[in-house]
Amino acid sequence: MQWNIYLSGEIHTDWRQQIVTGCENLNLPVVFSSAVTNHDASDSAGDFLGEEEKSFWRDHKSAKINSIRIRTLIEKCDLAVIRFGDKYKQWNAAFDAGYCAALGKPYITLHDENIIHALKEVDASALAWTQTPEEVVKIIQYTMTQK
Amino acid sequence: MQWNIYLSGEIHTDWRQQIVTGCENLNLPVVFSSAVTNHDASDSAGDFLGEEEKSFWRDHKSAKINSIRIRTLIEKCDLAVIRFGDKYKQWNAAFDAGYCAALGKPYITLHDENIIHALKEVDASALAWTQTPEEVVKIIQYTMTQK
Amino acid sequence: MQWNIYLSGEIHTDWRQQIVTGCENLNLPVVFSSAVTNHDASDSAGDFLGEEEKSFWRDHKSAKINSIRIRTLIEKCDLAVIRFGDKYKQWNAAFDAGYCAALGKPYITLHDENIIHALKEVDASALAWTQTPEEVVKIIQYTMTQK
Amino acid sequence: MQWNIYLSGEIHTDWRQQIVTGCENLNLPVVFSSAVTNHDASDSAGDFLGEEEKSFWRDHKSAKINSIRIRTLIEKCDLAVIRFGDKYKQWNAAFDAGYCAALGKPYITLHDENIIHALKEVDASALAWTQTPEEVVKIIQYTMTQK
Amino acid sequence: MQWNIYLSGEIHTDWRQQIVTGCENLNLPVVFSSAVTNHDASDSAGDFLGEEEKSFWRDHKSAKINSIRIRTLIEKCDLAVIRFGDKYKQWNAAFDAGYCAALGKPYITLHDENIIHALKEVDASALAWTQTPEEVVKIIQYTMTQK
Amino acid sequence: MQWNIYLSGEIHTDWRQQIVTGCENLNLPVVFSSAVTNHDASDSAGDFLGEEEKSFWRDHKSAKINSIRIRTLIEKCDLAVIRFGDKYKQWNAAFDAGYCAALGKPYITLHDENIIHALKEVDASALAWTQTPEEVVKIIQYTMTQK
Amino acid sequence: MQWNIYLSGEIHTDWRQQIVTGCENLNLPVVFSSAVTNHDASDSAGDFLGEEEKSFWRDHKSAKINSIRIRTLIEKCDLAVIRFGDKYKQWNAAFDAGYCAALGKPYITLHDENIIHALKEVDASALAWTQTPEEVVKIIQYTMTQK
Amino acid sequence: MQWNIYLSGEIHTDWRQQIVTGCENLNLPVVFSSAVTNHDASDSAGDFLGEEEKSFWRDHKSAKINSIRIRTLIEKCDLAVIRFGDKYKQWNAAFDAGYCAALGKPYITLHDENIIHALKEVDASALAWTQTPEEVVKIIQYTMTQK
Repeated sequence: MQWNIYLSGEIHTDWRQQIVTGCENLNLPVVFSSAVTNHDASDSAGDFLGEEEKSFWRDHKSAKINSIRIRTLIEKCDLAVIRFGDKYKQWNAAFDAGYCAALGKPYITLHDENIIHALKEVDASALAWTQTPEEVVKIIQYTMTQK
Repeated sequence: MQWNIYLSGEIHTDWRQQIVTGCENLNLPVVFSSAVTNHDASDSAGDFLGEEEKSFWRDHKSAKINSIRIRTLIEKCDLAVIRFGDKYKQWNAAFDAGYCAALGKPYITLHDENIIHALKEVDASALAWTQTPEEVVKIIQYTMTQK
Repeated sequence: MQWNIYLSGEIHTDWRQQIVTGCENLNLPVVFSSAVTNHDASDSAGDFLGEEEKSFWRDHKSAKINSIRIRTLIEKCDLAVIRFGDKYKQWNAAFDAGYCAALGKPYITLHDENIIHALKEVDASALAWTQTPEEVVKIIQYTMTQK
Repeated sequence: MQWNIYLSGEIHTDWRQQIVTGCENLNLPVVFSSAVTNHDASDSAGDFLGEEEKSFWRDHKSAKINSIRIRTLIEKCDLAVIRFGDKYKQWNAAFDAGYCAALGKPYITLHDENIIHALKEVDASALAWTQTPEEVVKIIQYTMTQK
Repeated sequence: MQWNIYLSGEIHTDWRQQIVTGCENLNLPVVFSSAVTNHDASDSAGDFLGEEEKSFWRDHKSAKINSIRIRTLIEKCDLAVIRFGDKYKQWNAAFDAGYCAALGKPYITLHDENIIHALKEVDASALAWTQTPEEVVKIIQYTMTQK
Repeated sequence: MQWNIYLSGEIHTDWRQQIVTGCENLNLPVVFSSAVTNHDASDSAGDFLGEEEKSFWRDHKSAKINSIRIRTLIEKCDLAVIRFGDKYKQWNAAFDAGYCAALGKPYITLHDENIIHALKEVDASALAWTQTPEEVVKIIQYTMTQK
Repeated sequence: MQWNIYLSGEIHTDWRQQIVTGCENLNLPVVFSSAVTNHDASDSAGDFLGEEEKSFWRDHKSAKINSIRIRTLIEKCDLAVIRFGDKYKQWNAAFDAGYCAALGKPYITLHDENIIHALKEVDASALAWTQTPEEVVKIIQYTMTQK
Repeated sequence: MQWNIYLSGEIHTDWRQQIVTGCENLNLPVVFSSAVTNHDASDSAGDFLGEEEKSFWRDHKSAKINSIRIRTLIEKCDLAVIRFGDKYKQWNAAFDAGYCAALGKPYITLHDENIIHALKEVDASALAWTQTPEEVVKIIQYTMTQK
């Protein structure tokens, strides 16, 4: 069985790549997916449909186009990893976690210890809290290979 | 028909009370609910089940007990209002929004203009973005009374 | 048992009132609901949230606010009546019919014979096609009273 | 991942072919589907089951046979494109949009600016409004390739 | 708690009345419902919508109108009793049983021993097979009162 | 796309084979499935688990084992064909039809004209009524090939 | 809002009564329910439908009749309390917990510390682990009254 | 069609291997899966995420990580086999059975005759009770090959 894993959240460090590489090195039967992670591309996803004077509508159009990809991939995934970094609000990551929770879709979180209190509701529905990409890889490896 | 409205998010200003009072003044057939909004009570919800040395588990126990209330009330509501204030991470509010989105539960957001970009995914699934409790009351009034 | 019936579609004739009055005269245990049927109120439902230069966004805001009411009432109804008049596109009525069909929610249509071909997909999922409000009342009466 | 895209609506212009060709030129991993788009074949789909004197029943039989294909393909698709042309009622397109909305199936619309008011409910649940097949192709390309 | 019980099937003996009376005598908190049980009324339910030359369409119209009542009541019931008599095909009763099974709705059957083989699939999904209305009443009494 | 079609009902004539052969001759991308159609094998499916003195329990065990196959195949199919012959009660066929109806699974019926009245509820939820295997093949061909 | 709470599991001590009394003393808006807790009545629930020589079928009949009550009450509850005592296998309690988990129904467990390892899967899906009826009452009180 | 079968429960005898070998010998198109069956690996699944002083939290972390695998595989399976051995509480097996029952996922049980009374609720929702791996293989063979 091939597992589909969705990687949600922070786009300013290379955590995604570390997880992907870690799983490749172990030859795990995994396919990863995520939202568009190019910040500018994501913000301007709707621009070609016409300019907007109000930033609210510009954001609205782009966010909806991005959601075509996000929702489909979350609904098809077997496991989601939700990453919270040190900076920014990252409400979209928490939104994805809530979305997974309501669907009964398993997810694990990846964040530092200093934000556990702010993330307690998100962690309460998670199946694991990890602090490093290596730990995520270990969980994936164990889930797939029993080792 | 009586409408059930869930009020999610920020607990440091009186926005909930303003909405409740606004609707009472209009005699709208609404019942409001929300999570436990007493910050200390919420944080210590699980303490009576035994002390924890690690703050992660203390938070975990409390967050899960709080979720009994939150999930049930969200699933029973006809509309949710998700409020984001100026401070704090408020990931639980974004989590609730994602939870509503996955259930197909209608929600509207209440937040200032300066955070619209950070909230674009949350707003993209909302049925309205409001900036004041008065606007929320107007939407409720209109939905219930056609005026 | 009280039945909830949602009346969707055309707002330029008094078909809703005829059905309501017909059922009242028979003392049927029915509660009717519908979208906001005041055309101007419906079109301007979102105006108080700020002006829009583009009519697309003005419509968008109003349509979403209206959908809070529409979706909730459709999901709570036991039967929907979908009315198509002679004029206008009335795509919202067909949209409501498709929404009911996907939910497995029973609906009947009310329209003249001259548009049966254009409505064949909508009628194919309906449980009855009626041509007058009296016929709708008869179906409601029969369903509720066995007579 | 291969994406399944359902193309619903108007059958009198070559918008489907433009989208298909546009995606082929980009080598996108997409499979398109749609209802039977041959107007006469669609209208006469049930004729071989016996003649009908009443056009209502002729339409009824054909529409139901067509729905075997339509419902299955919509339920299997990852994205639907709903096209409204200048002419005809096209209630089946709005019906498909409502069907998608109730299933939580992402859809985008394709129509000219002059009908945005009549389509406001349909657009309110869409993830994008496009005006040309090229724009549709761009959204598909972006969703699939992040570019 | 009030229990809703749907009584499906044979309409030529007074089994429904025996169950209703039996439960009334015990003051059980039960509300019973069923399809329209007047054979002629049921067969002619759609006649007022216009005559049909083909009996198939006459039956079709009536059966669909009857299904408004049947489906709603089955979906609202807590328990269904499916009765098969000695005569007739009673395919509608088996259809209701399959409908309940797919919804996960509990049902019990009521029929004589001589047809157990023909009903083995229907009984395999039932929570009990009874042979007399008295036995049905006992199950209802036990379920409601623990005695 | 490959279509999965479930063939339910009568096992005393070769209607299944006629449909399979008809579709093979047309090279249609169809996979057919059905319950175990060997009457004796089906009736004795549970015998190896121990003898039963009561025929009710013998039937019960076999029917449940058969249902592993039936339910899984119905839930995976894209279309079901429900066949009613001239003889026997065939309650299992009607049960399968009700099961499909509750799941929103498209089905068509195959039976002679002389039993349309008894099957009116089953036909009312079907997407077509056919009288010969050739008609079934035509519907499958049309659904798959648009011709 | 009135809360429905289902009490599942051990029937040899008075834990149910302690919870009920504790909540009554606090005037909490709760309605409790449970399976039939009279051991003999539960075991003999199906006896009136005819004697069985094999104890498997006697148990089978009784367990199915009991499940009418159990499933309905679990599906209607807002919270379940699952109690494991010191003795017996109590597989039905673990079965109820799994049933709740799959439905997304919140549940808490009530058991001594010495069996936490054996119950780790059951506790992993619970929203709290309690050791005394008083703790259960406190959670109910807090969930209902915010205190 | 390839069938996915989940093997749940006891890990101290070779029943899984007997079933797998039995099906291999018959060349059945089956893919088997199960939880991590190495007792120590399963118990220590969460240890690499940091030590816990309380055994409850150690178990909690491991059980949740194990549930990523278990839930996904149960939800993807077509049939589950739930095995209860002579020793231990095996509440996780009963939990899996309840989980399957709520999802409408077919399952069969495998256990000796001496525990049928304790397992009556678990067996009441099962599609078969077997006593040996050979019997399980026969059911799988019959379901897949009709023989």
